[in-house]
Amino acid sequence: MAYLRIALAQDNPAVGDLSGNADLLLDRTRQAAERGAHLVVFTEMFLTGYPVEDLVLRTSFVDASIATVASAARRLAEEGLGGLPVVVGYVDRAGLAPRVGQPKGAPLDAAAVLYEGRVLMRTAKHHLPNYGVFDEYRYFVRGDRLPIFRLHGVDVAIAVCEDLWQEGGPVAVVGRAGAGLLVVPNASPYERDKDDVRLELVARRAREAGCALAYVNQFGGQDELVFDGDSLVVSASGELVARAGQFRSELLVVDLDLPLATAPVEPAAYDAGDGTTITVEREVLSSAPLSSEPTPAPIAERLDDAGEVYSALVLAVRDYVAKNGFQSVILGLSGGIDSALTATIASDAIGPSRVHVAMMPSRYSSDHSLGDAEELVRRQGVNSRIVPIADIVTAFEKEIALSGLSAENLQARVRGMILMGLSNEHGHLVLTTGNKSELATGYSTLYGDSAGGFAPIKDVPKTMVWELSRWRNAHTDPSFLLDCAAPIPENSITKEPSAELRPDQRDTDSLPPYEVLDRLLDDYVEKDMGSAELIAAGHDAELVARIIRLVDVAEYKRRQYPPGPKITPKNFGRDRRLPITNRWRESV
Amino acid sequence: MAYLRIALAQDNPAVGDLSGNADLLLDRTRQAAERGAHLVVFTEMFLTGYPVEDLVLRTSFVDASIATVASAARRLAEEGLGGLPVVVGYVDRAGLAPRVGQPKGAPLDAAAVLYEGRVLMRTAKHHLPNYGVFDEYRYFVRGDRLPIFRLHGVDVAIAVCEDLWQEGGPVAVVGRAGAGLLVVPNASPYERDKDDVRLELVARRAREAGCALAYVNQFGGQDELVFDGDSLVVSASGELVARAGQFRSELLVVDLDLPLATAPVEPAAYDAGDGTTITVEREVLSSAPLSSEPTPAPIAERLDDAGEVYSALVLAVRDYVAKNGFQSVILGLSGGIDSALTATIASDAIGPSRVHVAMMPSRYSSDHSLGDAEELVRRQGVNSRIVPIADIVTAFEKEIALSGLSAENLQARVRGMILMGLSNEHGHLVLTTGNKSELATGYSTLYGDSAGGFAPIKDVPKTMVWELSRWRNAHTDPSFLLDCAAPIPENSITKEPSAELRPDQRDTDSLPPYEVLDRLLDDYVEKDMGSAELIAAGHDAELVARIIRLVDVAEYKRRQYPPGPKITPKNFGRDRRLPITNRWRESV
Repeated sequence: MAYLRIALAQDNPAVGDLSGNADLLLDRTRQAAERGAHLVVFTEMFLTGYPVEDLVLRTSFVDASIATVASAARRLAEEGLGGLPVVVGYVDRAGLAPRVGQPKGAPLDAAAVLYEGRVLMRTAKHHLPNYGVFDEYRYFVRGDRLPIFRLHGVDVAIAVCEDLWQEGGPVAVVGRAGAGLLVVPNASPYERDKDDVRLELVARRAREAGCALAYVNQFGGQDELVFDGDSLVVSASGELVARAGQFRSELLVVDLDLPLATAPVEPAAYDAGDGTTITVEREVLSSAPLSSEPTPAPIAERLDDAGEVYSALVLAVRDYVAKNGFQSVILGLSGGIDSALTATIASDAIGPSRVHVAMMPSRYSSDHSLGDAEELVRRQGVNSRIVPIADIVTAFEKEIALSGLSAENLQARVRGMILMGLSNEHGHLVLTTGNKSELATGYSTLYGDSAGGFAPIKDVPKTMVWELSRWRNAHTDPSFLLDCAAPIPENSITKEPSAELRPDQRDTDSLPPYEVLDRLLDDYVEKDMGSAELIAAGHDAELVARIIRLVDVAEYKRRQYPPGPKITPKNFGRDRRLPITNRWRESV
Repeated sequence: MAYLRIALAQDNPAVGDLSGNADLLLDRTRQAAERGAHLVVFTEMFLTGYPVEDLVLRTSFVDASIATVASAARRLAEEGLGGLPVVVGYVDRAGLAPRVGQPKGAPLDAAAVLYEGRVLMRTAKHHLPNYGVFDEYRYFVRGDRLPIFRLHGVDVAIAVCEDLWQEGGPVAVVGRAGAGLLVVPNASPYERDKDDVRLELVARRAREAGCALAYVNQFGGQDELVFDGDSLVVSASGELVARAGQFRSELLVVDLDLPLATAPVEPAAYDAGDGTTITVEREVLSSAPLSSEPTPAPIAERLDDAGEVYSALVLAVRDYVAKNGFQSVILGLSGGIDSALTATIASDAIGPSRVHVAMMPSRYSSDHSLGDAEELVRRQGVNSRIVPIADIVTAFEKEIALSGLSAENLQARVRGMILMGLSNEHGHLVLTTGNKSELATGYSTLYGDSAGGFAPIKDVPKTMVWELSRWRNAHTDPSFLLDCAAPIPENSITKEPSAELRPDQRDTDSLPPYEVLDRLLDDYVEKDMGSAELIAAGHDAELVARIIRLVDVAEYKRRQYPPGPKITPKNFGRDRRLPITNRWRESV
């Protein structure tokens, strides 16, 4: 056996900021060296950020990525870090002749080994995910290699992200080719309960490959995606050895005792078990094994389920604000639970001094609404103003006659316009306060309460809005939360939900109780069940017909909704793509 | 040689309306029989409509498609049409075990031969397009067969759409397997100049396959896509034999003299030249050849370039309105060219009696604006009303202080709210009047002039807006256009463009002339050139930097823009997918 200290850089690279990401790589490598690491592993497409979408089809962008990986290798050597091998993700190109059906420029979701001032080895992701939020057949061609480098006598293999999730390919070859450690750069988006699935998968692949496995994942928010970190190391038997925290920066340093390499160093081709051939390439960096007593590595505790989701939302808001250059946010505070939770997430994300709320009472607003909103302002210390909407609504009604739902929508739109006006005037990002149940059923007004730049709870069903609110009121941990016990007024949590767009309006006037609705929406939206399946699963037949109809006809509204963080297996963004013009109606 | 009369059904199936599409199939087959056809060919995914997006991942939907193709075969036989073979596209499933990375349910973009009351043969698209607006690796697994049926002694092979566009696969096998005719159901979206590319491609594939080729394409609008029909038949030497009209329904009946089949009927496997194997399956329907003197088939004249684009926009609006159940549309008419062209397209699409316009003058509107708008109303006979916005703007300004750009945006948003209010009250679809140059540079107000349900000229650059306006004023053909010479007031075409949101505002205050801007946008947006390439292509360096910056930071606005018809090779919809949160800046 041989001793090896590895460092996993769980960081938050910025999409498109190649020089900033390269600087971060140098900083982290320096820190890893100071902590005595023999190898540093960064995340998938670390130098470009992930996902970069159609940027990867731009020649200038791929050129810049390739230049950056080479200059990073040189800079490491110039700083005396050339002897510390670094595995880092970037975008490369395959050098294939153009053809119809192949992504322009034949880009690769690549990883490189930087060593002694140069790019020593290159590889690329073999399995391209093209489901859920992923469109990687649009962007990349397949990698077909498995690089293995010998470091202090231990063979270290590299695979990339999705190569763990699908059968066959480079990971299947590791066991036969022989390696002591498999390192895997990832950019794997968060969704509920994914950390359990991930640990189980990593353990299984380690056992299949017959070697220890180091999984390093990015963290941070990028448009609709949140990355949770959760980097981990398992032994060859699948036992958890080390685990980084969730939703935070961490340089996870792990001591390992690994078997000495015995395989010949000639390249060889292997049947990858998925109809393709993988070429194993080997380089020897250093053969003499090290020996030392391993220090036990940290195993971070998991957040509970609600804490995890809440943390994802806070991180998503913080990063959307910071990465897009905003200094402050604004939202409409109604006294209801959706806007109360959104305000609280914003306060936790960027601090209450940068959060602005507008209370915009109408003739139908109840007394408790303004009171509950003011109580939240008092508890959190956010900036507030009151903007009555009655006179503006009256001015509209003088010019055009509106009745019923049109008049209700008008109130919502006046509020949306006030927020947008304040945003334009003061540079605030407008946060939209709608939840997933509302977005599903179309219970929102286009350009009204749906107006805004980012929608923090867009993927949170109403029942979970309450759950997260209760959770937040009971916690001041994790450490990034404001030191504010019970930031949400209890009355906002317990009162009956209402949009207050007409006298005595209640959500239950036209919707079933949210426990019933959310179960049905989960089966229809997340699980894609048809009518017959939904009824067989115990949902009321009349309700199934009515809710499906609501969901289907609201597609046009969802298309114009602002982005917001995905926290479920299927969000109303790239996860679910349906035509607007659509005569398909589920029927039994 | 043997005689065969084939019928190509160029129709407009509705997405999701399986029973309606099946009825249409019966009608057309009856008509084809009356006209003496021996074979009827329908378009790709005719029974389900195309594209159906994530509906294809729903078990209930695929079940319904499979049931519909079987019932359509039975109904044909019940009506005495069972002896007339029908080739039709639908969705099937491959029956593969589920695995990660494979579309749920393993759906197939299938085609079937219906004959004597049953589904005689099945095949599926082999090449799956996953570029531009297409995401077909998300939806389908590959087909791996080439069905050939012998009809009156002629071997007829079937391939589907993309199989023509990519090298290798079933089309490559046709020549070696031997066939007298290749029929190809398509759903190929329109874009400028595509008809020339298509004819050339079809002719080349016919020569490669060594047989005649019948290409049948759907027409009609479906969300952002417009299909242009343009069905055609070429001889084995690639000569054009027949061509259907553009943007219209047509049953194209074509007489052909084709070689008698000589190939053995046993199934055989062929190397498809793309790393896969294609199994050729054969059925004999009838061996005795027919003999008759072929009647020459119609070769429809092409529309000129502007006529083609204009027709696409009219069809897109007509179908969006009709298929989504609207009776009328509304738009804001400013006197400028964008809204004038949009109103004219709407009048041509659904008739001026169903078009409503609102003139919403502000304190900055010039006299000619209202005059030009009123002149258009007079010429076209659309419904109009005047809604002054000054008092509403004042009511807003009493509640919140806005200056500069914020105040300009307020005016645009008040107009958007008026249109949305009238839409809610009267059920009109709101048409958005922005053009592509504006959408590219972000020169529009979110929830203001960008508000609406459908944006007819969203993919039309400003210079083309003028071109189309001049074209329309000079034409009353094709026949679906209103009988109205010069429906657009000349002054709207010739005056200098202005948003009129402040005194004496001109577009050229902050933008270069549109001829210069549109050339630059075309190179940056459509051709994905980086800064260095743009400057090398002759664009001014300072302008390149400024316009790229405008385009990049407007991404968030485009995400919330309504859908509108794609008419260029790259629209601001599924064709171009960029992150909002994006630090990449092109630089030299």
